[in-house]
Amino acid sequence: MALLKDLEWRYATKKYDPSKKVSQEDVDKIVEAARLAPTSSGMQQFRVFVISNQELKDQMVEIALGQQIVADASHVLVFASWDEYTEERIDSIFKLTTQERGLPADKFVDYTNRLKAVYLKQTPEENFTHTAKQAYIGFGLSIAQAAELKIDATPMEGFNSEKLDELLDLRSKGLKSVLMLPIGYRDEENDWLLPMKKVRNPKEEFAIEL
Amino acid sequence: MALLKDLEWRYATKKYDPSKKVSQEDVDKIVEAARLAPTSSGMQQFRVFVISNQELKDQMVEIALGQQIVADASHVLVFASWDEYTEERIDSIFKLTTQERGLPADKFVDYTNRLKAVYLKQTPEENFTHTAKQAYIGFGLSIAQAAELKIDATPMEGFNSEKLDELLDLRSKGLKSVLMLPIGYRDEENDWLLPMKKVRNPKEEFAIEL
Repeated sequence: MALLKDLEWRYATKKYDPSKKVSQEDVDKIVEAARLAPTSSGMQQFRVFVISNQELKDQMVEIALGQQIVADASHVLVFASWDEYTEERIDSIFKLTTQERGLPADKFVDYTNRLKAVYLKQTPEENFTHTAKQAYIGFGLSIAQAAELKIDATPMEGFNSEKLDELLDLRSKGLKSVLMLPIGYRDEENDWLLPMKKVRNPKEEFAIEL
Repeated sequence: MALLKDLEWRYATKKYDPSKKVSQEDVDKIVEAARLAPTSSGMQQFRVFVISNQELKDQMVEIALGQQIVADASHVLVFASWDEYTEERIDSIFKLTTQERGLPADKFVDYTNRLKAVYLKQTPEENFTHTAKQAYIGFGLSIAQAAELKIDATPMEGFNSEKLDELLDLRSKGLKSVLMLPIGYRDEENDWLLPMKKVRNPKEEFAIEL
């Protein structure tokens, strides 16, 4: 029940105490949960940027549609995905896999050829939609890991991704921002959402047994 | 470290022991993790279908591109998202929220008007891309919950979603299938992936500190 209790505990924190910082050890664990996340064909189509620099966080407020959260949070994690699939990217991850597992270098040739046949004929936009989805899995696991450590987090989709890509120079790395996750410690007295009940659709509506 | 250990333990199971069944109590916990998942504006844009009927699972093999996994697994969870945003759907979840929190009925009118201004002018395809992404968060948390219970799971994107929608009659419910998650117990002797090392990009490549 540990995970369920952690998920019950967490909420989308609306106000952080800017004086409280998350330790490097805990940040590393939160990132590690995303690194261990499953991804489509194990390609790990996303990266996590860890931002603690106050100046950068301050600049991100406007990008985050004026939300002060990103400046007050201890760290902001930015999940950024491959802007498209390329032959090199697909080959690179399977090269790592064969090396790490001590397999023949051509072990996955048929498989990667099938992946290339699918992805390389799609538009960059279609491919980015797919790589972005993978980031959501890791994002969920980072949120769960933060909760396990009793660290607050605010899942955020609402920001100007083009401006964030520019600020963090993501496009030169072949990445585009997908999600932001401010983490830190709640300001207990000033967070309007904290006393509110967590609301979810009832189990019998959410799950359908067939 | 509980979650990280669970994530280290799990792998995308390739062969299930069809004689071993997951208990209803454990299935409920795995679904509950998805129900508690954060979603954009808390709208819970997805549902989980729980399939244990052998005949249905057998029919799903062809839909899952011939993967016997779905027939041999104890249960198959299907994550299905809203096919589009509608005024009714947006209003309905905020009606629930105000009721559950004992807030005035018009508390979120400005907020829902902003959501409607965004979503109702987008195409159903654009909206489904967004609702589908939300399912990935819950999907990751269900996988983590299964791992906590030492239940195996196989994250699956590769299937014919139109045929699955037809088989499960999802379109009449305004839903489209996004992801499949067979769960059960591994066949230790016949799963080729089990002895293989888990491979991930090294930490220093995956995470970038700014």
